[in-house]
This record gives sequence, structure tokens and C-alpha cells, in this order.
Amino acid sequence: MKPSVINIGLQTFAESVRTQGIEVVDVDFRPSPYDAPRLTRTRDGIDIEMANAEAVRRIASGKAALIGLGVARDVIPEMRDKMILHAGPPLTLRLDAQGEAWDRMCGPVRGAVMGACLYEGWAQTPDEAAQLAASGALTFEPCHHHHAVGPMAGVVSPSMPVWIIENAAFGNRAFCTMNEGLGKVLRFGAFAPEVIAKLKWMETVLYPTLDKTVRSIEHGVDIKSLIAQALYMGDECHNRNKAGTSLFLRAIGPALARTCADGETLARVIAFVDSNDHFFLNLSMPAAKALTEPAEGIAGSTIVTTMARNGTDFGIRIAGLPGQWFVAPAGYVKGLYFPGFGEADANPDMGDSTITETAGFGGMAMAGAPAIVKFVGGVPQDALDATLEMYDICAAEHDTFLIPALNFRGAPLGIDVRRVVETGIAPRLNTGIAHKEPGIGQIGAGLLRAPIECFTAAFDAMREKGESHDTR
Amino acid sequence: MKPSVINIGLQTFAESVRTQGIEVVDVDFRPSPYDAPRLTRTRDGIDIEMANAEAVRRIASGKAALIGLGVARDVIPEMRDKMILHAGPPLTLRLDAQGEAWDRMCGPVRGAVMGACLYEGWAQTPDEAAQLAASGALTFEPCHHHHAVGPMAGVVSPSMPVWIIENAAFGNRAFCTMNEGLGKVLRFGAFAPEVIAKLKWMETVLYPTLDKTVRSIEHGVDIKSLIAQALYMGDECHNRNKAGTSLFLRAIGPALARTCADGETLARVIAFVDSNDHFFLNLSMPAAKALTEPAEGIAGSTIVTTMARNGTDFGIRIAGLPGQWFVAPAGYVKGLYFPGFGEADANPDMGDSTITETAGFGGMAMAGAPAIVKFVGGVPQDALDATLEMYDICAAEHDTFLIPALNFRGAPLGIDVRRVVETGIAPRLNTGIAHKEPGIGQIGAGLLRAPIECFTAAFDAMREKGESHDTR
Repeated sequence: MKPSVINIGLQTFAESVRTQGIEVVDVDFRPSPYDAPRLTRTRDGIDIEMANAEAVRRIASGKAALIGLGVARDVIPEMRDKMILHAGPPLTLRLDAQGEAWDRMCGPVRGAVMGACLYEGWAQTPDEAAQLAASGALTFEPCHHHHAVGPMAGVVSPSMPVWIIENAAFGNRAFCTMNEGLGKVLRFGAFAPEVIAKLKWMETVLYPTLDKTVRSIEHGVDIKSLIAQALYMGDECHNRNKAGTSLFLRAIGPALARTCADGETLARVIAFVDSNDHFFLNLSMPAAKALTEPAEGIAGSTIVTTMARNGTDFGIRIAGLPGQWFVAPAGYVKGLYFPGFGEADANPDMGDSTITETAGFGGMAMAGAPAIVKFVGGVPQDALDATLEMYDICAAEHDTFLIPALNFRGAPLGIDVRRVVETGIAPRLNTGIAHKEPGIGQIGAGLLRAPIECFTAAFDAMREKGESHDTR
Repeated sequence: MKPSVINIGLQTFAESVRTQGIEVVDVDFRPSPYDAPRLTRTRDGIDIEMANAEAVRRIASGKAALIGLGVARDVIPEMRDKMILHAGPPLTLRLDAQGEAWDRMCGPVRGAVMGACLYEGWAQTPDEAAQLAASGALTFEPCHHHHAVGPMAGVVSPSMPVWIIENAAFGNRAFCTMNEGLGKVLRFGAFAPEVIAKLKWMETVLYPTLDKTVRSIEHGVDIKSLIAQALYMGDECHNRNKAGTSLFLRAIGPALARTCADGETLARVIAFVDSNDHFFLNLSMPAAKALTEPAEGIAGSTIVTTMARNGTDFGIRIAGLPGQWFVAPAGYVKGLYFPGFGEADANPDMGDSTITETAGFGGMAMAGAPAIVKFVGGVPQDALDATLEMYDICAAEHDTFLIPALNFRGAPLGIDVRRVVETGIAPRLNTGIAHKEPGIGQIGAGLLRAPIECFTAAFDAMREKGESHDTR
């Protein structure tokens, strides 16, 4: 009789037994926090601490200047016709996934895709749009596969104008659509005629006006500097962007006045920005994307370079394994709901905006944004505690993104999957909440943690490549 | 032989002995903190707590809307030709004062007066200006005697344009010049040709542009609301006004675009505001003035309605004794100096900007502005401590000016001279530092406390009118 083996914990043990043809039952056992041996070196001898130091050095030392706008099909690499980008990891990724991308897509992303089909003129009605989307005629790919990011549904279709952020220190670019404002908006899955009409105004009036303005400013607009300033002004630049929006309008104001000859258009453009305190989010996000990408591909680094959700799955990528997503089901947000809505209406966590935490602000810098609790729930002490806890799982402190309330201490920078696994502390996130049905929109905002399974999976993948040393 | 009496402390005891023809020597003894009997009622029976409650109710419930601008001679009540307004109490006030106003004027106020003479065309050279000012041909009066306030030297001459702030809840108005920006500016005592040229540009370009803009906005611009928002964004709206300036530019942006047809003028106006993070100070100050004036004249109230300095004297007024100034020598500021300058170069404390503390923000709200310590010195914990201490000497907490970092607690509102005397805690101030010589300008910024003698004098004056009750 062949022996049967029950393997507890490390997959590598199970594999070595399996190769002998022995049946192995894996038990999903995780050593308790602090008992995890430290992973210090890859099998090919790379010092992981040094690799991580290089990763955070690259993220912290990057530039992020807004240099203009462009139409997605013209400026986003490998953006093709009938292609729609969405937030989060690929929808076809999870091994247990059934069916095609459309089948695994959550309601609000479906809604946003339907809206994009109407916006592009590929369909005339929502039903036609849904049929087209389900037909296989469209290609769905993550924004993150195209140097782009998108808040919430994160849908980008070929005709949409996008901000272009340049990281001159490393020569890379990142892209994001302009923020549509509050209420019924595509990013929360709404597709009503007024949603599409606003997107058309943004394409035909807002885009050319702002593009002309930005391109007239020598060296562009330094978004990294605006983020640093906004962190002194109560924003964390993820779910609070009031200071960032104000500073951005100041920064482009004179150039806007010089390049826009029509006073009424100028007034409408300023009013559009002024009406939406989240306008800056769609600039802070691609800035974060531009800052984090240079860390991708640093051999041996366990620093997280991507955290993103598509409303179905949560996925991360790490610097040392750049092509690989580690996914788990997206969580549910605990938060404050708009009147008439509650937890039963909520879609799981969604959007690429967690790129801000990856780059050392957003939830990492909540200590500097006590007023955010009015939007996402909790009390100001929670905001302080959130940042203080995040130091435990980060490799560094930012040298430019500082928190006055913590005596100008740098925000936690560079989530290290090893530290997440060792401490059992998953990154904290703050986010908007979309209705789970297509076509409705935002119903609240709140707080949650990233699913720890993504980090343990990434840790395990690195462990396959590395040695463990007990450094206690 | 008649007895001689040594009276320690309460003046009322000495008076009752004196009326019997007995010689009394007063000893300037102050009961140690917390031993001071509480003053609870005036002689004519007014409950001081109730009077104070009414004073803070009026200050907190006022409105402060910017409704336009005007030229000082046209809009400031009792502003006459050859009249110059200045910050602080009257220069001829102190009993030990020697000579006329000009003789008691500090260097930077002299410099600003000389600049005003050049600006008005009353003199062609600084020497001529100084001669004119010393000749007695000019009238010097405090801004505060004309419903106006001015930062630092606070000089207002008849041709200068001023903001008009209306408190619609009580029907009063307040006035202040526009902020000139940083560097060499009149308010710090500079009068070089470029200072005057900038003031002329402000009169001929900035003033008509902004006046037209503001008057096109229905109900004006709600400055009180902008202050409340800025307190959520790291400003205390006295020495940090970055958020306020940004929010103000947003608030007027669309109207500015609609009312200013010339793109280049529009660009310069926006650039002027954008170049100066203190632009909003000259709006928060008259807002504070408009909010505090309705409390003046509430019989029996010991709430401070004015704190102001002319660079020579520090003066306060209280609600129950509206015509009366209580003055003491202005203090020296401990702070951060610009390169090349030090304490030996500093003029004593100066300006009407302490109206902000009187109205429940500025130094009162430092807990919400941790980044201010980069400007005035100290560490963020000092900013928190400053606000927490001020609760001890204030009668109330503001219902609109809230501090997120203190769990949205209202800022300390309504300095009660009784509490200052009982606790020995004088109000904390943060302020700019001017060079003591005319013509130079700002050399730093820092922190100090109001001289406690102003408060003990006001307390004594109220005690003359009231009864003491030991409420321990």
C-alpha cells in the first residue's frame, strides 16, 4: 500500500513528496505571525533587502509630470480598436474562473463597458451594448497591462481622452482618463444618456482646452509636488483630493487664461473642475503608476508594485515577479452608505486607485488626512493608527511625501509581502462603493483591508525561488 | 495721627478706604492662578456669564461674505483726506507716551506711512514723506476705529482699494486692503519704487478686475465658509493661508473668467493670487472683524473683541467696555529668521491680524495646522498643545470652525479676560516679524504671547464695575 501524506504549510515539501508518486493532501495552514522564517536571499543569491532598497529608491526618486493629454487609441501602447481596458487584474485569471471575461465581470464594470459601447457608437441601446460585450467581439484587458490606471470600473475605450504623466527620471509614461465628477458616472457603472453626454463634452471641450493649457506650460505640471503639498493640506490623495484639486487649478490657472480665448468655455472648464473635489484623483493615480513602474522587474524584490481590483478579484504584483498576478476574491467595504442604500446593495471592492497606497500615499498617509473619516467612516484616531500600522509592513519611509501630524515623518513606502506575511497585517484601503447592479453608480465609501491571500501567494512564489533563514 | 493703609490686590478695597480720606499705597499684587475670586456679576446686576454667552453667540452666528471692493475714501466710514489708518491701538494712547503719534511710531509703520505718502502723491521722495508725516499735517487713526483691519503695519491711505466684507446677520461691514504678496511690501515697512509700482498695479488692474468679478457673484463669496473649509486643510487662516487662497481662487474662478474679457489680464490676476499663499489673510482678517464687531457693547461681557498691535503697543478691547483700549508694550517674537537676520533686527509684535484669534481661529486653531511650525517654529505637538491650552481661557467652542485632528472639536472661541487672569495663561499668537528700520520688510516669523498686563487691566476695569464672588 502506498502511503498517503498530509502536508501542512510549505508547498515545496508537498511537491517533493508528489514527485515520488505519493498522494498528498495539502492543508491550508499558515504559521502564526512572527514564526515565519525570514526570506533573505533568492536561490540565485540575490539579497532581497538590497533588491527591495532599490525598488523603494526607484519609486521615491521618480518624477511625475503631467505633460499633456491624448486620445487613448493614439497614446496608450497597444490600445486597439474594439479594446476596452478595465481596472484590476485580468478577469480570466483565477484558476477556478468559469467562462469568459464578460461572465466574470461584476455589475458596475459591465455597466461601464455598456456605457463605453454607447459612447463609442458601437451600440445604440444598453441591450445592444450588453449583447456586443458578451459576443466576444470586444477585447477586455487590464489598464495595468497598458501603463494605465482607472478608478473604480476603470473603463477606457479607444476614443476617450487620457492624461499623460511622464516619469522623466526613468523615461516611462502612465495614463488615466479625466475624472467625470460625482453622481451618475461611468466609473461607478452608470450609462444613462446624461453620463454619455458628459463624456462627450469632456472629449470635445474639456480635453482640447486642458491639453492646450498643459502643453503650454514648460516642463508640464509637477504632479508629484502637488501630491506632496496636498499631504500637508489634509488630503491623502486617494479618497480626499480637495487640496490637490485646488492646487491643480491654481497651477494651470494662468496658462488656462492665456490659452483659452473663449471666456464662457473657460468659465465652464473652471466650474467643472471646481465642482468636483475628486478631480485630482485621476492625476494622483497615474502619477503613482508612473512612479511605481520603474520598480517592476527588480530581481529578488518582494515589494508590491501593483494592487488592483476589478470588482470580482483583487490582484497584486511584486517587483521581483513582474509578469505574475496573485489574486483572491475582492472584499466587501465597510463604510458609510448614501441614504437608501446598504451593504446588501454593495459590489465588492473595485478599481486601480490602490496604486496610490503602492506608491506611498493614499491609505498609507491617512494620518495626514483626519477629515477623511467624514467620507469613509471612523474617527480621526483611526486615520493616525492606520498610518502607524502600515510602517510595520513597509520597507521604507518616503522622503518627499511627508506627514506633518507625525512630525513630518515620511509616509510608509513599499509594501513588502514578507512583512505582510510575517505580521499578518494586510494593507489598509479606503475606497468608494459601487452598486452591484450595472447602471446605478456610487452608493457609499468606506474602509477594508487587502485580502491577505494575495500576499501569502506572492510570498510562496518568492519562496519557491529563495532560501529561508531563521533570523530570529 | 491718621492711619496709613497698604492695599494688596483688589482696587475696590483701596477705594473704600480712600473715600474715608485715608492714605492708601497700592501694591501691585496679583493672586496666584486659581486663587482669583471669580467676577460673576456687574454692580448693576448683569450676569457676566450670560453676557459672555451672548457675545460668543453673536461672534459664532455672524456671516462674513465678500460683496465687493471699493476705494478706502469712498467706502470706509469717516475716512478723510490726509488720513492714514494703521494697525493696533492709537499711537497716542499710552499714559507714559511722549510726543505725537509719529514720534511713537515704530520703524516699519513709519516706513509704510512714508510709502503711503509716495503712493498718494503727497510726497516725491522718502525724505519729503517723512517730513510730511512728522509735520502734523496727516491724521493717524487705528484701522479698528473705522471697522477696518490691516496686517502688520496695517496702513490704509485714501486711494487704496479695500475688500468689503458684510455680516448680513448683524448688518455691519468690515474692510481690509488686498494682500500685496511676499518680499518687499508696504505692510512690512518697505517703500521702494517697486513697492509703490505694485500697489498702483493693484489699484488700476487687480482691483477693478476682482471687484467686477465679486459683484457678479450672487450673495458674494462666503468667506466664513472658506475659513471653515481651510481649517480642514491645514490652514489656521492667520499665518497659514495656502488652502484658503486656493479655495478662494476656485470660488471666484468661473466668475473671473466670465467678467474679465482680456486673457492676458486674467492670466496676470490669477498668477498674482497664485504667487502668494498669504493672499487669503486679507480676507480672513476682515471676516474676523465683521464677525467680532457685533459683540462690542454687550454690557457686562468680559469677552475680548479686539487684540491689535501697532509695533509699539499691544492693545485689547472687551465687549463690555467697547470704547476702551487696554494697552501694554508690544512683545518680541521668538521665531525663525530669514538668512542674514536675527533678533537684534526685529521690531516688536505688530498688526491687526490677531483679530483672527479673537474670532476663534488663527492661533486658536493651530492644532489643525501642524505644518505651520515650518513657518513659525516649533514642532507639530506644540501646535496641538497651543489649541488645547487656549480652551482654558475661552468661553466657548466654535460651532463652525472645527478641528479634525481634535475629533472635529470646535476651535476655542471668545477669550475671557477673567479666565486669562485666573489661569495666568495669555493668548498665544503666531505672526510675521518686520525689521525694526523703515524700508526693509519681513525678516522672519514666529510665536509669542499677548502681554498679560492688557488682560489684567481690562479685568481690573471690569472689577471696578462688578462684584467678586468666590465660587471655589
